[in-house]
Amino acid sequence: MRVGLDVGGTKTDAVAVDAAGHIAGRVRLATGWGPDGVAQTVLDAVAALRRAHIGEAAVASVGVGMPGQVGPGTTRVMHAVNLGVADLDLAAAVSARLGAPVGVENDVKAAAIGAYALRAGRSETMAYLNLGTGIAAGIVRDGRLWRGAHGTAGEVGHISVDPQGPRCRCGQLGCIEALSGGASIAKRWGRPAPLPVLDMLDAADAGNADAQRLRAGLVEGVAAAVRILVLTCDVDVVVLGGGLTALGDRLLSGVVRQLAASAEASAFMRSLALADRVELLPRGSAAAAFGAALVGAARAEQGPDGAAGITAHDTKETVAHG
Amino acid sequence: MRVGLDVGGTKTDAVAVDAAGHIAGRVRLATGWGPDGVAQTVLDAVAALRRAHIGEAAVASVGVGMPGQVGPGTTRVMHAVNLGVADLDLAAAVSARLGAPVGVENDVKAAAIGAYALRAGRSETMAYLNLGTGIAAGIVRDGRLWRGAHGTAGEVGHISVDPQGPRCRCGQLGCIEALSGGASIAKRWGRPAPLPVLDMLDAADAGNADAQRLRAGLVEGVAAAVRILVLTCDVDVVVLGGGLTALGDRLLSGVVRQLAASAEASAFMRSLALADRVELLPRGSAAAAFGAALVGAARAEQGPDGAAGITAHDTKETVAHG
Repeated sequence: MRVGLDVGGTKTDAVAVDAAGHIAGRVRLATGWGPDGVAQTVLDAVAALRRAHIGEAAVASVGVGMPGQVGPGTTRVMHAVNLGVADLDLAAAVSARLGAPVGVENDVKAAAIGAYALRAGRSETMAYLNLGTGIAAGIVRDGRLWRGAHGTAGEVGHISVDPQGPRCRCGQLGCIEALSGGASIAKRWGRPAPLPVLDMLDAADAGNADAQRLRAGLVEGVAAAVRILVLTCDVDVVVLGGGLTALGDRLLSGVVRQLAASAEASAFMRSLALADRVELLPRGSAAAAFGAALVGAARAEQGPDGAAGITAHDTKETVAHG
Repeated sequence: MRVGLDVGGTKTDAVAVDAAGHIAGRVRLATGWGPDGVAQTVLDAVAALRRAHIGEAAVASVGVGMPGQVGPGTTRVMHAVNLGVADLDLAAAVSARLGAPVGVENDVKAAAIGAYALRAGRSETMAYLNLGTGIAAGIVRDGRLWRGAHGTAGEVGHISVDPQGPRCRCGQLGCIEALSGGASIAKRWGRPAPLPVLDMLDAADAGNADAQRLRAGLVEGVAAAVRILVLTCDVDVVVLGGGLTALGDRLLSGVVRQLAASAEASAFMRSLALADRVELLPRGSAAAAFGAALVGAARAEQGPDGAAGITAHDTKETVAHG
């Protein structure tokens, strides 16, 4: 079994993937805080998978996607702010306890790898655009993640598309992340709510002018990210994932409308058929955890990152929720 | 000898490259108009190289970069508007007369290939940003051109970075090409001059407010293109080429200042060291024609595009001007 974990700020999603590339089991649990808490979460997730699904089956590798910076080829994650982790060599912390090699990857990159694998060859090049607290993309070409010269390929969140737009935490104005990132929207919406972006959309539907401005910015930012990924990298498809995609069609239909509106003015843009190149990950997709499993498998085989060692033979996710 | 031609709207640059990858001869001549004129230009260029430099040396292949759309793997160029060519199979037109295989490529892509080869391994990933009548980029990774799913990777000219910016010929507002393309600036400057962008810069230096606005837009657009190429693809370096680079340091220093200014507000942007990642092609560089020679060589060997068949062993361009 290859185990994969998507460790998020609030919860962790874990899958066990069998040799045929099927998901043999899946569990969700709360994420611990700080280096010790996160390490314990990894151990608890594997234990939960054993209890609920895989019993004593051998675990050949464990891969972990984390919301932080992971040095390529290392197992060290830094600046995982949402988890209270400044610097943690996760393999050193848990590999011996698990008796398996541990691979670590940035969570968006792991999700890109997983989303690509689950497409099972339907696209040669793909961008995975994570819409969450922040905005970032992973670019996959011919099954391989494109890291770039310094590992920052896909950081579209900090591209400014409006010199008069809102201030981003990165310091610039009108960044895609300032327009469309969950944290930025929540801050500018300002109302306490368990799901601030959803609250804002509801208020927009009800006619609140501030909310309607924020909604327009959200949609424009996501559409701009899609345009930039297509115009710069000419990817087959942009797959939208991350927390904001729980908004489902309320988000996607707005983005598609925005892409169509910009195409209205331009035969060139129309020819790109942008609206046809955008998809939402299926609700409840295990792409992020599945991609982490691939990362772990690659680590175990000391092969290149990406789909080395496992190919997804079957796009149907055989999911058993824990 | 591998011959390479960069066929521009006004003039054609042609080189002969020997087996060691050195430029054995170079000529420039006026470009003919229409399919017959362009075909004749190719024949005339090879004849001129023979007369001035290579005599009866065997020409193993001819590669031609053209400002139009070239179907990948074909020798057919379409929509070369500046040359009066709607649709031309250039190999069919000249290959038999030349007695050599003919490869054809979009001029920006050919220049990207050539600029990369002339860097002789100094960078693994590179973007070549062509600043000319229009704005487009070629992205090269590990020696291979990144075409994307439909061959439009690098079309950064039609990314909008200012929703209140000038109208682009593509129909959108505030595109990079509307801000920084030579044709757009000339049109908006409106004064008849042999070199409108230079005239505009002179007027800006002399205090003309309209010119200063246009200059600011030019510089902002180029800087935005650099940021987008780095943030999306994380290229080692962005090499600036094309007609506007004749403006030399007047252009580059403005772009570097603009990149530094945006970094001032943002530690994240500072960490990318964008200003260090921008270079101008050397004045008089033969990168475009050299890249075309590589395209022709690859065509002859029926190998993949890019540096197949020739590597640039010597970065010094041994240039004999014709």
